[in-house]
Amino acid sequence: MYSFVDLSLKFEEHFNKRQFPETPENLYDAAQYILQLGGKRVRPVAVLMANELFSDLHQDAFHIASAIELFHNFSLIHDDIMDKAPLRRGMGTVHSKYGESTALLAGDVMLVVAYEHINKMSSDKLHEVMSLFNKTAKEVCEGQQMDMDFEQKENVAFDVYLQMITLKTSVLLAASLQLGAIVGGAGIGNQEHLYEFGKNLGIAFQIQDDYLDAFGDPKKFGKQVGGDIIANKKTFLLIHAMDVANDAQKNELQALLKDNSPDKVQKVLELFSDCKVADWANELKEQYFKKAMASLEAINVLSNRKSELEKLARFLLDRES
Amino acid sequence: MYSFVDLSLKFEEHFNKRQFPETPENLYDAAQYILQLGGKRVRPVAVLMANELFSDLHQDAFHIASAIELFHNFSLIHDDIMDKAPLRRGMGTVHSKYGESTALLAGDVMLVVAYEHINKMSSDKLHEVMSLFNKTAKEVCEGQQMDMDFEQKENVAFDVYLQMITLKTSVLLAASLQLGAIVGGAGIGNQEHLYEFGKNLGIAFQIQDDYLDAFGDPKKFGKQVGGDIIANKKTFLLIHAMDVANDAQKNELQALLKDNSPDKVQKVLELFSDCKVADWANELKEQYFKKAMASLEAINVLSNRKSELEKLARFLLDRES
Repeated sequence: MYSFVDLSLKFEEHFNKRQFPETPENLYDAAQYILQLGGKRVRPVAVLMANELFSDLHQDAFHIASAIELFHNFSLIHDDIMDKAPLRRGMGTVHSKYGESTALLAGDVMLVVAYEHINKMSSDKLHEVMSLFNKTAKEVCEGQQMDMDFEQKENVAFDVYLQMITLKTSVLLAASLQLGAIVGGAGIGNQEHLYEFGKNLGIAFQIQDDYLDAFGDPKKFGKQVGGDIIANKKTFLLIHAMDVANDAQKNELQALLKDNSPDKVQKVLELFSDCKVADWANELKEQYFKKAMASLEAINVLSNRKSELEKLARFLLDRES
Repeated sequence: MYSFVDLSLKFEEHFNKRQFPETPENLYDAAQYILQLGGKRVRPVAVLMANELFSDLHQDAFHIASAIELFHNFSLIHDDIMDKAPLRRGMGTVHSKYGESTALLAGDVMLVVAYEHINKMSSDKLHEVMSLFNKTAKEVCEGQQMDMDFEQKENVAFDVYLQMITLKTSVLLAASLQLGAIVGGAGIGNQEHLYEFGKNLGIAFQIQDDYLDAFGDPKKFGKQVGGDIIANKKTFLLIHAMDVANDAQKNELQALLKDNSPDKVQKVLELFSDCKVADWANELKEQYFKKAMASLEAINVLSNRKSELEKLARFLLDRES
């Protein structure tokens, strides 16, 4: 069994080359640019880990892992255009460097190249893989649309918010794991357990993300603490605060959302504190982590084979940045 | 053998239903909207015609035809965003109706749904079909990037312009025909002849398009004659005029491109006339039409089976609007 780090290195060896033709230069340089910004490559490595849970690493897992990483970056390029984001991983976004039209097109061609990687599969599971990949790709688009729709709304119900987060961020990790399981020859039951593991881990990860943005240690966080509050972003924390706040608190919170005073972050954090949002978030995260662990537990392979996935889960949730 | 009209009706029967889930409404209504603007559906019907050239219509041809039509509309949505076009087929473009972000996302999800249709194939040709579809999709993106790059250039060489047009508009028709041939069980030689037929027909079609924009009969054309001239669009006509003009004419043409005087169209048309651009364009179109016909001729099936494709070619090139 390889560790997460071993498999990361193996994936980089496979992926760390130009993924696109040389010309038209503008188009393909823009596409290659975002891949070189790095990232933890959690999703593609998850494909490899899931394959290895059931059988020796298959070359097809590397093709699918590449497709997943390209899909993820396609969605980042297009999301950044929609969000008018200037920075990604501390560097200029693709559209801020190459212009919106080229960025749009670079995302498009990256999605097509993702399908080229899938089509390199040698096994007879192409239909099955395409089916899950397509379903997931649609869901990620749906999640992004829901997120944009929420910007226009004052209140979003917790359940609906959870559905958006699941689609926008969790299903891709879940699908990465299931795709690896398919290549590894897992049966449908084990595939589903892995999918649920990934889905719930993804939700827990997002709760942690929202938590750190509000309550993280500024020395360790690496980004501006309170960024979500300044941007009026709907988060697990805000949704819950609106749910439990009394009328006076609700009014204050809504006034703060329309306001951009210098002490906005501090005032929102005080309200979060009054509403015990931090404890609630930690408890909710723990709940999803436990669900994830129960699904991992249920997978029918020797438990020592699962230790790397468990380590990955703990690493993703214990981080402080 | 079915006629083009018969097959159009068969395709509409297959395609004329909502192609997307109900929710998120904003996303999928935007995607469905452009499909309802109509169009001649030349490319999907070409898939069916090519299948029928070699064998009875196969259900897979309908799946591929749907994928081709969705891909085409995906590219229209994104091109319209890049061109900031307000109208498409006389109606508001997707982004002007639903906003740029939703239009971007609607294009994305439409491309994914195109792959869903491909994945419905029951035959063992999925790898082969995916391979040609992916190659073509990349080429269409490359053509669009070249077209955008040309906007920044004063002069574009004829060969490079031809390459752009081939990628941006011809290869999709060519691939539609080859995909139909693959489903129909054609050998590689016949597949390639059909591809060449479609590619050269596509180029001839574009020359006709450019010709009509400048020299069309305003009563029949349906759009504003001279639209390309007003927009300073690079066309076959302009590229050729720049190639053959003497220095004085070249300077005048370049000055006109920077100008927006009310008699711009008239003055450019006079220069086109001095450079005999109309005759040249008709001759070039004829040349590509003949190339297309030679490829059709070379296909190894009874020639009466080819008559519908020949009729389609003549219909596409003899149109006045």
